[in-house]
Amino acid sequence: MPKLLLDKEKCLRNIEKMAGKAKRNSLSFRPHCKTHQSAEIANWFRDFGVESITVSSFPMARYFADAGWKDILVAFPFQPGELENLLQLMEFCKLSILVDSPAALPFLNHIPALISFYIDIDTAYGRTGVKAENPDLIEQIIVKASANPHLEFRGFYCHAGHSYKAGSQKEADDIHHKALRDLGGLKKQFGLYAPKVLYGDTPSCSTQEDFGEIDEITPGNFVFYDLIQHALGACALEEIAVAMECPVAGRYPADERILIHGGAVHFSKESLLVNGAAIFGQLVQRTDQTWTNTGEEKYLTSISQEHGIMEQCGDLIREVNIGEKLLFLPVHSCLTANLMREYLSVDGIRIATLNS
Amino acid sequence: MPKLLLDKEKCLRNIEKMAGKAKRNSLSFRPHCKTHQSAEIANWFRDFGVESITVSSFPMARYFADAGWKDILVAFPFQPGELENLLQLMEFCKLSILVDSPAALPFLNHIPALISFYIDIDTAYGRTGVKAENPDLIEQIIVKASANPHLEFRGFYCHAGHSYKAGSQKEADDIHHKALRDLGGLKKQFGLYAPKVLYGDTPSCSTQEDFGEIDEITPGNFVFYDLIQHALGACALEEIAVAMECPVAGRYPADERILIHGGAVHFSKESLLVNGAAIFGQLVQRTDQTWTNTGEEKYLTSISQEHGIMEQCGDLIREVNIGEKLLFLPVHSCLTANLMREYLSVDGIRIATLNS
Repeated sequence: MPKLLLDKEKCLRNIEKMAGKAKRNSLSFRPHCKTHQSAEIANWFRDFGVESITVSSFPMARYFADAGWKDILVAFPFQPGELENLLQLMEFCKLSILVDSPAALPFLNHIPALISFYIDIDTAYGRTGVKAENPDLIEQIIVKASANPHLEFRGFYCHAGHSYKAGSQKEADDIHHKALRDLGGLKKQFGLYAPKVLYGDTPSCSTQEDFGEIDEITPGNFVFYDLIQHALGACALEEIAVAMECPVAGRYPADERILIHGGAVHFSKESLLVNGAAIFGQLVQRTDQTWTNTGEEKYLTSISQEHGIMEQCGDLIREVNIGEKLLFLPVHSCLTANLMREYLSVDGIRIATLNS
Repeated sequence: MPKLLLDKEKCLRNIEKMAGKAKRNSLSFRPHCKTHQSAEIANWFRDFGVESITVSSFPMARYFADAGWKDILVAFPFQPGELENLLQLMEFCKLSILVDSPAALPFLNHIPALISFYIDIDTAYGRTGVKAENPDLIEQIIVKASANPHLEFRGFYCHAGHSYKAGSQKEADDIHHKALRDLGGLKKQFGLYAPKVLYGDTPSCSTQEDFGEIDEITPGNFVFYDLIQHALGACALEEIAVAMECPVAGRYPADERILIHGGAVHFSKESLLVNGAAIFGQLVQRTDQTWTNTGEEKYLTSISQEHGIMEQCGDLIREVNIGEKLLFLPVHSCLTANLMREYLSVDGIRIATLNS
């Protein structure tokens, strides 16, 4: 069966680097845990002074609260279907939520204790959030919330996810600087409330040095990185801390094609365009302690449920046999980790997750 | 949280229809269980006379063996990493495997009892299998296997998965008829061994009426169907037996955009092109007992890890509120079911799977 290998040393270096950048820029650091979804990996952050985390769902918040985390932001707009989960969870930890509409507030009217909330701000991503250009709506939310003594407005949250679509570093810089201007402007405009500003997708947090008026960063993917981040210039291939280990199950020399056991239920269907063609993983070479680049670029070129195919695999077809294991860097480590539900460290230790 | 609703009545009708087609055409019926991955759903097939099943991995075979299935085909080329699983499993059930290379055979030299194998045949899909045009290689496999008294050659297996890429019914017909010719030819050529022929992707099994020399069909997806099958003409929208129920978490009227809780970790990243744009689900309307088409086509237009977005949702934005639930037909039900790990019947009963 395919396994998801984790190089703890690379992972710790990624954490150390991001924690160092936060410290240098006087930023708090509230890493997003949706990438690894693992209590053990979250613990690795504690050595770098991390005491608060970000998650993407209430079940994930509950898992990390059970693992001892006391300050958790659920970074998904609150909707009333989660009220029961929220009520249970607020007994165990300091919980923060996101709000981007006055319509979400009445559902919180009868909460028995203090909940912090951040207003989700859209600086042009266009997924969630109040548009930065709509301070009237922000004001409405703050005023309406102030009628509820258990709701505490803490500031603004922004995920500038359109950084993932930037075609160049210049474009990425523009996205980042617009976000800084927008968030800095709101911080000033609503200065009366002393709002904190939370921000930080992995590409921006990895490549930018100026964080303006930001108070706290919340990136997640950097813990592992992946081929998408590499394509965006957010990491080196050598910094990618997870790799899929997949057995060779078929060799088709006439077609220069290799079959591996490793498909959409292992890697996910997320693809990356390389030279105009979709790929699902990049071959690396196993070494004693980790893995290294192969020198030439070889890709997983198509996947179905359990099958992975390397087309145009060239000389590799003569070098591998059925049953041997090949290693691939994943396109999107968050989705691969979510599907694999556990890790195997390079020295053979199993690491569990929320889904194990 | 998002839930995967299952309409058992639709599901039973899909099973009945396929079982009926098998019977009319004097075909054995060995449904693939990788779509539902559920012992309870597999049991529904027993009422239609089904006694043998197909699975895509050894852990899945083990799960169904534990659930009482005694005749299981693992439809993935055998590789030696699975030898231990095979040895354990063959104590519990009649196990069949796929082989598409003589190189796989030595790993089976010391099995203690009889294993049936089918030779995987490639009729132009180009994923796995011995090319139908290469009878010499087929002969090599049969001869080499005959030296092992515990290996029993049973026949040919073919998944003509290129039917999923057919641009028209004519093209799909051509793919099917080439497969019938190829497999019929091999059955005759290797008639000495009285080979059985196993065949059957869902599009072909749903749309074709002529099965030539085929002995047994092995489709899987038809149990639920999905938007891909609908686009291929393999089912009506009304036959799709699963739907994702997702709470509305955000409304953005100025942009005619709705946010649902339901993303790539629920639906999967499999997309379908509709009018040139990728979609991830199609809106349907909940009714008392099931769901129906909305009359107008509304789609889930983008997804990230937990977020689902409906762009250009039109009037719907004025009809829904935060916390209400919307229903979507999935693009690829196999991957959605794999991620969701359980079903909720339309009358509220939980149905477990291998991954629950």
